[in-house]
Amino acid sequence: MILELDRDSHTPLYAQIAIQIRGMITGGALKVGDRLPANRELSKVLGVNRTTVNTAYEELLADGLIESHVGRGTFISAIPSPPRRSWIKEPAPPPPIQWGPMLAGRKPDQWLSGMPRNLPAAEAVSLAFALPSPELFPIEEFRRSVDRVLRKEGSALLDHGSAAGYRPLREYVAQQASLSGRAVAPEQVLITSGCQQALSLIRQVLVRPGDEVIFETPTYPGALSVFCGYETKYSCIPVNEGGIDLVLLEEALAQRRPRLIYTIPSFHNPTGVTMDLASRRKLLDLALKYRVPIVEDDIYGELRYDGPSLPSLKALDEYGVVIYINSFSKIGFPGIRVGWIIADKTVIDALTVTKRANDLHTTLLSQAAIFEFSRRGLLAKHVKRIKKTYANRRDVMLSALEKYFPEEATWTHPEGGLSIWVTLPESINANQILIESMEKGVIFSPGEHFHANLSPANNMRLAFSTTNAQSIEESIKRLGAILKARIGALRKQDGGHGFEALRALV
Amino acid sequence: MILELDRDSHTPLYAQIAIQIRGMITGGALKVGDRLPANRELSKVLGVNRTTVNTAYEELLADGLIESHVGRGTFISAIPSPPRRSWIKEPAPPPPIQWGPMLAGRKPDQWLSGMPRNLPAAEAVSLAFALPSPELFPIEEFRRSVDRVLRKEGSALLDHGSAAGYRPLREYVAQQASLSGRAVAPEQVLITSGCQQALSLIRQVLVRPGDEVIFETPTYPGALSVFCGYETKYSCIPVNEGGIDLVLLEEALAQRRPRLIYTIPSFHNPTGVTMDLASRRKLLDLALKYRVPIVEDDIYGELRYDGPSLPSLKALDEYGVVIYINSFSKIGFPGIRVGWIIADKTVIDALTVTKRANDLHTTLLSQAAIFEFSRRGLLAKHVKRIKKTYANRRDVMLSALEKYFPEEATWTHPEGGLSIWVTLPESINANQILIESMEKGVIFSPGEHFHANLSPANNMRLAFSTTNAQSIEESIKRLGAILKARIGALRKQDGGHGFEALRALV
Repeated sequence: MILELDRDSHTPLYAQIAIQIRGMITGGALKVGDRLPANRELSKVLGVNRTTVNTAYEELLADGLIESHVGRGTFISAIPSPPRRSWIKEPAPPPPIQWGPMLAGRKPDQWLSGMPRNLPAAEAVSLAFALPSPELFPIEEFRRSVDRVLRKEGSALLDHGSAAGYRPLREYVAQQASLSGRAVAPEQVLITSGCQQALSLIRQVLVRPGDEVIFETPTYPGALSVFCGYETKYSCIPVNEGGIDLVLLEEALAQRRPRLIYTIPSFHNPTGVTMDLASRRKLLDLALKYRVPIVEDDIYGELRYDGPSLPSLKALDEYGVVIYINSFSKIGFPGIRVGWIIADKTVIDALTVTKRANDLHTTLLSQAAIFEFSRRGLLAKHVKRIKKTYANRRDVMLSALEKYFPEEATWTHPEGGLSIWVTLPESINANQILIESMEKGVIFSPGEHFHANLSPANNMRLAFSTTNAQSIEESIKRLGAILKARIGALRKQDGGHGFEALRALV
Repeated sequence: MILELDRDSHTPLYAQIAIQIRGMITGGALKVGDRLPANRELSKVLGVNRTTVNTAYEELLADGLIESHVGRGTFISAIPSPPRRSWIKEPAPPPPIQWGPMLAGRKPDQWLSGMPRNLPAAEAVSLAFALPSPELFPIEEFRRSVDRVLRKEGSALLDHGSAAGYRPLREYVAQQASLSGRAVAPEQVLITSGCQQALSLIRQVLVRPGDEVIFETPTYPGALSVFCGYETKYSCIPVNEGGIDLVLLEEALAQRRPRLIYTIPSFHNPTGVTMDLASRRKLLDLALKYRVPIVEDDIYGELRYDGPSLPSLKALDEYGVVIYINSFSKIGFPGIRVGWIIADKTVIDALTVTKRANDLHTTLLSQAAIFEFSRRGLLAKHVKRIKKTYANRRDVMLSALEKYFPEEATWTHPEGGLSIWVTLPESINANQILIESMEKGVIFSPGEHFHANLSPANNMRLAFSTTNAQSIEESIKRLGAILKARIGALRKQDGGHGFEALRALV
């Protein structure tokens, strides 16, 4: 029996053997009653594992083509019916699986997944992402922290950990939170894979199909992906200069029974605005009055560059109505995916059960490394350094906006965070500006991603964190030129009359 | 003005300042029109930050007790109404938030979260977890892999990564999968945070409230947590010696329109049984006939100790009906939380969008480290080594069962995996045996955690992977004694008659 095996083929060896034997039976080279070589013999001749020959024979056995008799050997027992399997050439294929209808039923995620991607060109400037700047990462110090914990804890870090998180990190987070407000116990802390997972877990635990949630508009696109992508209703409350509009919020609370209020009170994403102390108090009072939990996203909270620091809602929360979320993604490293939730122990317990069903626990290596890095004071040192750089970049961007942007545009002056929110005249669609600016090698995030209804918006979020001062100046100059040209064209178009009226609205 | 600050108090400093000034106004020490010290002055006297004093003054301002006049200073403007905030001593508290009803609506997770925990005693022996043995982890080699990738890739590993996974790892997984079956492209691979997250994402994408799923009974408790914890219906199909019962499966498929079939065809958890090739073919045919996707959990697939190796369902899958999941948790390290899904690109795309909304992406450090470890052949070397050890431990456990267990008990003889499934006489509840055995320092997983309905079961899952040969022998001896005593007591109780009838059923 002559078999030829192709070791570079994607068809596994056992299948090649089975296919060829089958072919020999079909072709008449082997007849019913013929004896096949013993496994040991054939594997030796072909230079393959005995299990490979075994599997090939099992294939033929399963198809009823051969029979095995203990002590006597293996014999051809039937002639194959017309081939059916595709590794037998040219079968009649069944209709393909229609995945589309199976995967339907959820809105496509245009918020997070629709965010602009970085331009491939090396000279392109990205103002699109409110993220820390990788060139400032203290990679050597972090590498040493990783190495130190692996040497110290060894295999315990590679074994399963607790769903609630690495105990020393929970203690550290609790301790840090206690320093800046009221006492927090480690049992009130759940470690998550970033704020994104924190939001996802909170939705799974608190929001059932048909329930309603309240969030700010505009807001973080990742929150929209979590809250709008499922069978959830929502009310969007506008953000004004003092944060979420409390009058409209109270109206919504009085009319409906929402399951939660999601808010970013400090350096709100994308607007950069911060709620003052009195508004924070008022928001807590409303939550208590209407018995609706607040989910406080404090991810930018530590990145304050000027102005007096303010307590978080959680620090002011006497009755446990606030579920606080934060992460190391903006002050440390986004790629390690470590965040946390602080809440009433009952809530943390329920979230922990859900966390376990979601992914058992967050990788221990990331948790232990960032704990070590923080414990040794390296995180505090790093935060101090990046705050200086980001403050400078913000100032450069604000000056450049003043210098190059048309007078019809307005923008926020954030005391912290990573981005500035620009409002254009209403007749200008930021998506169209993005198309033009990409050609000029500049990207930013157009306003629509920050709104639940994704309506084209006259806003641009300009992140100043990941770009150096010179590139910020240059890119704002280019954006300014595009905007001025667009506004000039609009003015010309309607003879200036309609446009003046529009300007008055700005 | 004399203020005393307690730096050890949980009340923040700004609040202490505000409380005391308020007290002075209430007590008459400060009167309307009195001027407060300038911020600069007070912060110097108290030795606190200027922002602390600022925040304290903002508190009082928000409460209407003081007024600020630019250039003139800050003055007392009102006498406080009775205290309202709790940091003012003894307020009338609003009723506490009732979290219970808010968190309700989901079944408590008794499957995964209810699994026995390790005993604290050092001499205790755990047969409870079908996990790799930490004492066999090649920690030094892994540490060097981590260090190497951090040196090589630096800050890119700490920055955000792609939701679909670290590209070199996706390519590696695709390549490995192609070696053992049909060609897989990197675009057909999604990296997940372990198989648990793979299951959770698949549920989110394929199963809507009210939909039905099919899985084996008994099965992996983590799958029960995913599929039974939500508004999902399910059918449980018994596992027999050849894997899932295909006759009952076809009945269920014909009667209902389930969204998916979840199965563990190789070294099934908890029973250890493996589907033969003919059954695998038949299962695929059924899935195609009824147009129902198969979710194939192959987490133990590589841990075969004897018998011929079999192709995975995915390797036999010509029409893309199989969604294949696997991870590094059993062959490598569970704590790093890296797994993967292989499926049709359409399915992978939908899962990737959901992955992004769940946690943006899996930590890059874990992904890059396990890739480096695998790429250098260290994983293959490790797998070879652990297979030898686990095979030996399995054999030791099987001999010990033969030697010490009562003849009324039966058990499986798995060709791979990490555990053995013992069936006791029906009148014996494994939970009660566990209570006794814990006193004797031995834990195992009682059968109920592996059943959707959690009914007390007469089964024990005994994991042989994490315990050395000597402890396996000793713990099986202790369990055997407990079982024999229990059976003896039952026999005595009914005079031997009922018990004989019962034995006949075993």
